[in-house]
Amino acid sequence: PIAASSCDTSEPPALLAGASRILRSHERAAGGRRSLGWDGVRALPYKLETTLFRGVTRHVLAAPERATFDVRYYEVEPGGHTTHEVHEHVHVIVVLRGLGRVRLGGETHELGFADVVYISPRDPHQFLNPYGEPFGFLCIVDRARDRPVTVEE
Amino acid sequence: PIAASSCDTSEPPALLAGASRILRSHERAAGGRRSLGWDGVRALPYKLETTLFRGVTRHVLAAPERATFDVRYYEVEPGGHTTHEVHEHVHVIVVLRGLGRVRLGGETHELGFADVVYISPRDPHQFLNPYGEPFGFLCIVDRARDRPVTVEE
Repeated sequence: PIAASSCDTSEPPALLAGASRILRSHERAAGGRRSLGWDGVRALPYKLETTLFRGVTRHVLAAPERATFDVRYYEVEPGGHTTHEVHEHVHVIVVLRGLGRVRLGGETHELGFADVVYISPRDPHQFLNPYGEPFGFLCIVDRARDRPVTVEE
Repeated sequence: PIAASSCDTSEPPALLAGASRILRSHERAAGGRRSLGWDGVRALPYKLETTLFRGVTRHVLAAPERATFDVRYYEVEPGGHTTHEVHEHVHVIVVLRGLGRVRLGGETHELGFADVVYISPRDPHQFLNPYGEPFGFLCIVDRARDRPVTVEE
């Protein structure tokens, strides 16, 4: 039983419960760029604050009620960056598209397709895109997690 | 603190604990194909049985001790397929490369880059690659999970 995934709500129907399901990806034009999207999954603002990050969208691809993890997709537009932040919970990041950088442990590392970043508890981190194409990555976390704290620059 | 990831052991050092870390991906020649790999992460046989699947490798990319989930990468070579199986735990799959198919809920669905498959408890499923290039996908699961059972054909 495969449910349709064409509704446009802020909570992707795949996330919560119910039948097996396929979310089809597509590239769509957005502000002159080609952004990655999924049918039935809304592109959400990265966060509510507006001064500490730039040009980031997120998609919650899966938060299955019968599992303990969430799978999110973040896309950083050219010139954009995430908040420089720290928390107790672990991040596992897998790059899906484009090139970017991560600030981590006092160093900056280049990232490309399928590179994996493991971020251990309390390590400050920030993702940046100084390149000309969108930089997109999956971020997998435990559902039960603490709230990130912004690192003072 | 970023640890090196160049050792070749069956348990990727990123998985278990310790410092933040980056696993760099690369394509390598394997049997005339170009397979996706990561420094320090061994390509493991898919399973120990040999009759119910064909041409599948797996990489355990992350199983962080401080989290409750595991992130694995499966690559199905042209003509290969995974076991047709069923279990109680949830799968979240994200396609990284190539094209393939999933048997799910009595139907077969085509899959391509960044498509997401949510497999709910007790839904029989199988991944197949009838195409000419490797078909690779991430599979995210809870660490605490039941053992798959093969579906009788």
